[in-house]
Parts: sequence; structure tokens; C-alpha cells
Amino acid sequence: MITLNIANMMSGVMGQKGISEKSVEGIKDRVLAAHEEITQRKRSGLGFMDLIKQDTKDIKKAAEAVRGKYDNFILLGIGGSALGPKCIIEALSPMHNLKKSPKVFIYENVDPMTLNNILSVLDLKKTAVNVITKSGTTAETMASFMILYERLKGSPENFIATTDPEKGNLRKLATELGFKTLPIPPDVGGRYSVLSPVGLLPAEIIGADSDELLRGAGDMQKRCSGPDVWKNPAYLMGALLYLMDKEKGRKTDVLVPYSDRLKVMAEWFCQLWAESLGKQGLGLTPFPSLGTTDQHSQLQLWMEGPEDKVIVFIKVDDHGADIKIPEVFKESGTGYLGGHSLAELINAEEESTELCLQRAGRPNMTIGVPSIDAYHLGQLFFFFEIATAFTGFLYGINPFDQPSVEEGKNFTYGMMGRKGYEEKRAEVQEARKKKAGWKV
Amino acid sequence: MITLNIANMMSGVMGQKGISEKSVEGIKDRVLAAHEEITQRKRSGLGFMDLIKQDTKDIKKAAEAVRGKYDNFILLGIGGSALGPKCIIEALSPMHNLKKSPKVFIYENVDPMTLNNILSVLDLKKTAVNVITKSGTTAETMASFMILYERLKGSPENFIATTDPEKGNLRKLATELGFKTLPIPPDVGGRYSVLSPVGLLPAEIIGADSDELLRGAGDMQKRCSGPDVWKNPAYLMGALLYLMDKEKGRKTDVLVPYSDRLKVMAEWFCQLWAESLGKQGLGLTPFPSLGTTDQHSQLQLWMEGPEDKVIVFIKVDDHGADIKIPEVFKESGTGYLGGHSLAELINAEEESTELCLQRAGRPNMTIGVPSIDAYHLGQLFFFFEIATAFTGFLYGINPFDQPSVEEGKNFTYGMMGRKGYEEKRAEVQEARKKKAGWKV
Repeated sequence: MITLNIANMMSGVMGQKGISEKSVEGIKDRVLAAHEEITQRKRSGLGFMDLIKQDTKDIKKAAEAVRGKYDNFILLGIGGSALGPKCIIEALSPMHNLKKSPKVFIYENVDPMTLNNILSVLDLKKTAVNVITKSGTTAETMASFMILYERLKGSPENFIATTDPEKGNLRKLATELGFKTLPIPPDVGGRYSVLSPVGLLPAEIIGADSDELLRGAGDMQKRCSGPDVWKNPAYLMGALLYLMDKEKGRKTDVLVPYSDRLKVMAEWFCQLWAESLGKQGLGLTPFPSLGTTDQHSQLQLWMEGPEDKVIVFIKVDDHGADIKIPEVFKESGTGYLGGHSLAELINAEEESTELCLQRAGRPNMTIGVPSIDAYHLGQLFFFFEIATAFTGFLYGINPFDQPSVEEGKNFTYGMMGRKGYEEKRAEVQEARKKKAGWKV
Repeated sequence: MITLNIANMMSGVMGQKGISEKSVEGIKDRVLAAHEEITQRKRSGLGFMDLIKQDTKDIKKAAEAVRGKYDNFILLGIGGSALGPKCIIEALSPMHNLKKSPKVFIYENVDPMTLNNILSVLDLKKTAVNVITKSGTTAETMASFMILYERLKGSPENFIATTDPEKGNLRKLATELGFKTLPIPPDVGGRYSVLSPVGLLPAEIIGADSDELLRGAGDMQKRCSGPDVWKNPAYLMGALLYLMDKEKGRKTDVLVPYSDRLKVMAEWFCQLWAESLGKQGLGLTPFPSLGTTDQHSQLQLWMEGPEDKVIVFIKVDDHGADIKIPEVFKESGTGYLGGHSLAELINAEEESTELCLQRAGRPNMTIGVPSIDAYHLGQLFFFFEIATAFTGFLYGINPFDQPSVEEGKNFTYGMMGRKGYEEKRAEVQEARKKKAGWKV
């Protein structure tokens, strides 16, 4: 089971830079109110909690069909719909395309060079295409879908649409065109969808067991179901980050896994946290990082830059492999490394960095992960999702909407010539003129 | 030539959320002092400016030897020594390992699973190993070097050491062992080393022309050599970010390229900026992002979260490829996309996002890049390097040291049993005991 160590967040260890137990007690009413928002399902968007009860039969069947028939699998999606699957693949089947079949490609942007490159290395006829958008109106995903659809015209069997079970543009198209489909439950938003077919189909395709992901999530749900903030690791992380913002002005939380396989987990967490909590002038800025690598790029800033950050480490006990460092160059400046192992070194560096930050008065906490497998990945997903929802409620924010991203879409509609958006196009052209004089 | 558009940073467009021209004039003395620090080379570390004059003959020869003889190329390095090469490869030869030979692997961490995976997909005998560390004491790089050295014992011809031309642990070993070597000039720090053999050897190995990288850097140096902040794009970017911090409390700068091929450029920039400027409680936190993708993860936070950020876009005029979106599903909700192209869509979204942020009173500026090739990549590297050095001097910070990352190394030495660090080991064990009671 994953754990949370908060020693280096607390005033007992950190002195004035830390949070007192009294402060945590002081927000007990808020914590209880947030707990009730969750348990009583006061707001729509909490459907991600029900995903643990999913029947994975159809997902497994769809994956089996892809594995048996196709050399490649392209996923079209953006935001959570791409980062969730990517996170699962990087964690459970690193370097997948150099080692295993079917090869997996995630096309998550509208960069023409990237799609060109993908199309140049595969035979589209031997490729399954998974298009993921709940509404079916996501411009980026639909644009690439339209391109691949035309190139595979007459082969509807190559497509799997993951979308709303009943409504929306893609559901309608998929029905008309005769695609296989998998559902994204109506009460599950894109950024909370990793444990729906959005993430579970790719998981099965790379050979991971989606039931294990759900079992991990289910066990974490049990562990995070009580109202006592001291015993609920997701609430405790949220409450401490909230207090660090309110009491100490620390508005950035850096997530630093010490494992290459969890690098994308940090990016996935950032999309979840940023889009859920960045509202009404509030919110915390999540920063994705990677240990040990970023000790050589970010650590200086965490140690001695502005005092506006909290560092959250992820420490992995068992890396699933180890390599001994041989006893060579004994008389050289790095002879001391010989006889140890890479796993020892990476974990020693993690512990050293924690301690360093603590000594410098920079608050940090550590999520402990026994090993990186489907079960513990499921735990991590659920842990971060429930922590995000809880923290939103602590702030009095709705963690399930994204009101500010709509306006940009309207300008894009205008520029792409969508009917009814002519005014928006004119506004962009006006702004362009204004900007012209400011170019160096 | 790359450009900088600052309209959405200025009070003329942004009102009270922007910076006035008077404010920029007001720091003219500081700007001049910083300019003199650079031109008069008052501080060591500015050697990166001389790299444009390099003779690339030896680098080209070394690359030719690798290309002619080996199927694979492994680079061992961390921080700038890995991110610089990675940035060049992703920009100039995306999806390299699925398309071209020799295959390139960058091992930049000490994750045992990653090295295990790399070793499982290649024949080490047919692999050139490039070990990069200026001092030769970088624990992570040296640990992996020791492992590969032992496995390739008796084949010194497989190794190329990129290190200090005369001093240090790796220089000494390379001489003893008979390795080919390439120099990192003494006055060039790791994070400013991308245009030294650190980045140029990998560039040549993937088939890019290192002279073009240097030509671009040289042209950018000319453009950024004058003291007038209004005509020098690197100084202008630095001055505006400095003023946004001092006047408006905006301490985070988000770099958002709208091109997959520049995703790692944003990460490279972040290591440069963070380690150079995060000192004395000062500095700006650089945040790596990617358009359009992060419109579906970060944009909500930029638009409506805390007012502590400045967004810096990179817009690419020519994406080097384009794909038309076919006119299918005309009656559907995304029919308007048909007949346009992916390049149109990605650039329309960039412009829409700029305008959205401007309307919401969120300052932003745009770096314009004509196309992504070695010449313009060289320009971008030099632009960011000189902007970083200049901004450090504006703050009165030495942008070339990293005083706070040393302490962590001492704890690691202690835990890895290095002689003389027994006390540090005891401190870690003591801290571990203290932490034990705080685990949930």
C-alpha cells in the first residue's frame, strides 16, 4: 500500500517553516464539509469513484481483437485522454515500441510533422485507431480522426471510439459508421477518466491487467474513505498543501518521482490538478519533475529560490530491476560507488534531497510506493484524484469544471471559418493589427 | 531570424496589468550594468559566447567514425549534458529510433529499469558510448559509465569522453584508458554547453550540421549584442520578466512552444533558467509546457488561477509538413474543420490562446520562429542563453554557479560509504528516525 510521510511539512520538524498540528485541527470543519461533498455526491463529476466497480469484459475483448489482428495501435486524444494512457504505458511497458507488439502511438496534438512521421513508419491498414473524446467536439482530436478516417475509408473495423455512451457528436458518428465503441460514463470528466476505458483499453493492449488497476484503486478508495484527516493520506496531502498556501504563501507544488517510469505520472497529475483547481484567482500550480535528473536542473531553485514551493517526492522501494556498479577505477574520484547498485544510488539521492531541503527550511513530503505495477498504479491514480477533488472542495472551488478554456475555442472557431463565429475572427484580426507594432 | 512580440506585456495593450515603457526606461542603468558584465566578461562562465567560433572538424570526424561503425549510440549525461542533446535530436530528427540509424539512447538518470531496458534492445559491442561530465565526478553519469565500461572491457574504441580538456577525473581516466575525447571548454558550464561538443557530437550523429547550429547562434549573437533594450530581443525578454516580478509579483514564466519538436526545448530552457537564477531567495520559476496539448491541462490555471505567471509562446511559421483535413462529416459538429489543415489549426489555436489571455488580463509574449532547422535552433539556444545571463545580472545574481546543490551530494556520499563522509551518513540515519513517526 502506498504511504505518505509528512514529517518535513510539520512545525515539529521544520519549526516556523512548517504547519502546526493545531493549524490542521483548525480547518476540521472545512475538512468535514469537503468530506461530505464527496460522500454525499453533492456535485456532479464524482463518477470517477464508481469506476472501480466496472466490468472489464468488453474492454478485454476489444483489446484482444486489436492484439490478434493489428501491428499498430494509434490513440487520438488530448489532455487527460492522452496523458492517462501515456502514463500507464510508460509505467508498465517502458520502451514499448522497441520491445513489443502492437506498437503504440499516441497522437495528442495537431502538429502536422508528428502525424506525418507516425504515418511514415506504419502501415495504416494494419493499424487500429482509438479515437477518444467524450463530447466528440474536441477540435484537435476530431481533426486527426477526420484525416485517418478518410485514409481508412471502407475499413470501419479498424476504429474504436471511446465516447459518451449515448450523446454527442462522436457517439452519433460511431453509430452511423459502424465502429466498435467503449463508454466514458457521463459523470466522469476527461481529466478523471484514466480508470475508464480511456486508460483501460490501452492498458490491456500493452498486456497489463485492467482488473489489477481497478483493484489498486478500490483498495485506495477504502483507505481514503474516512473523515479523519490524520488517517486519510489523500485528505492529509490536500490539507497540508492548502495550509501551506494560506499560511505561508506557497502556491506551487512540485511532484518529483524518483523513477523514469513515473515521469509521465507527474505530467498526468499536473493536468488533473491544474485544470481542477485553477479558478477564481485561487489554486496551486503543479510542477512536473523527475529525480535524480532534475537535481541537476531544478534543485538549486527549490533550495534557494523564492519561498513559494512545496516539494512532493515519490519514492519507489523496489525498482523491478537492479544493476551492480562494478568495483573499477578504485583510486579515482568516484571509486566509492563500486560495489553499490543503481537502485541504492537513486534511493540514497532521494533521501539526501529530502534532508537537504528540510535543512534549508523548504517543506517537502514523500509518497512511498512499494513497486511499480498495475495494482500500485491504480492506487496512485485514485489517491491523486480523490486528493484533487478534496482540495478543490477545501478551497470552495468546483474541481470538475473548466470555465475559462471555452473562450479560446471561440476564437479558433472564428479563424477556422465556423459559421456564426465571424465576429470572433474579426476580433483576432483586429488584435493582430494592434500587435504588429510591438515586434523586435 | 527569430522575433519577439511584446504587445501583450505592455500597458498600452494590457492596461494596469502591463508594464509601461517608462518602467523599462527606469531600469536603464541596471540594463547597462548587466550589458557591461557581459561584454567586458566581468565574471567567469561567459565562455559559451565563444562557442560560435569553434572548429567542428574533430566533432565531425568523431561522428563519422560512429556512423560508419556502430548500430547504436548511448549518451551518458545528466542535466544540461542530456537535455541539450535530447533537445537537438527531438527537434531535428523526431522519432529518430523508428526511422534512422544509428539508434540513439540517452541515459540521463540512474534508474536501473531504464538501463536494463536499453541493454535488452541493443548489442553493446555494436554501440558507441559517449560519456559526458566536465568534472568527471558526477555520481550519476560515472555510475553508469562504470557499468558500461566493465561490460565493454577491452573495447576502449567504443568510448568517447566529452570532458574538460585538461583537468578532472574523467580526463585522467580517458587518457589512461585510451578513449577518444572531445573538450568542454573550461569557461563553459554544463547547462550552457549545448553548442559545445556536448550537443554538437549527437547533432552530427543524427545527421544534422553542427556548423548550421553555430551559424544560427552567431547571427543571434550579433542581434543581441547592443545595449539598447528595445532593439535587443534577449535583453527585452529578460527586462520584462524582471519587471513583471518586481512590479506585479509574477514569479513564474511558462514557456509554451506550439510544436512537438520543441517540447524538449522547453525542458532545456527550464534547467538553464532555474539553475542560473534560483538564488538568494530570488529568481523566476520556469515552467515547461506544450501547445496545443496543454490548453487541455494548464490553460484553465493560466487564465483564472493565481496572478503569478507570465506566458511565453513559441510560434512556428513553417512546420515543415502539412496535412489537409478532409471535408468529411460535413453535417456534424466538427464539419467546419474540413478543407483546413493541421498547420492552420495549430497556429490558429496559438493566436487564439494569446488573445484569450490578453482579454483576461494575463500578460504574455511570443517568440516567432520561421522554421525548425539547425540554423534556427542555434538561434534559439543562443537567445535563451544570453537572456538568462543578462537576467541574472539584472537581479544581481551570478548566473553561472549553483551553490545549493552541493550539500545533497555530501549526504549521498555518506550513504554510499565514501570515506570522510561518515558523519553525513549518521545525519541521514538520525533524520530517518525522526521521520518514522509521521507516516500515514
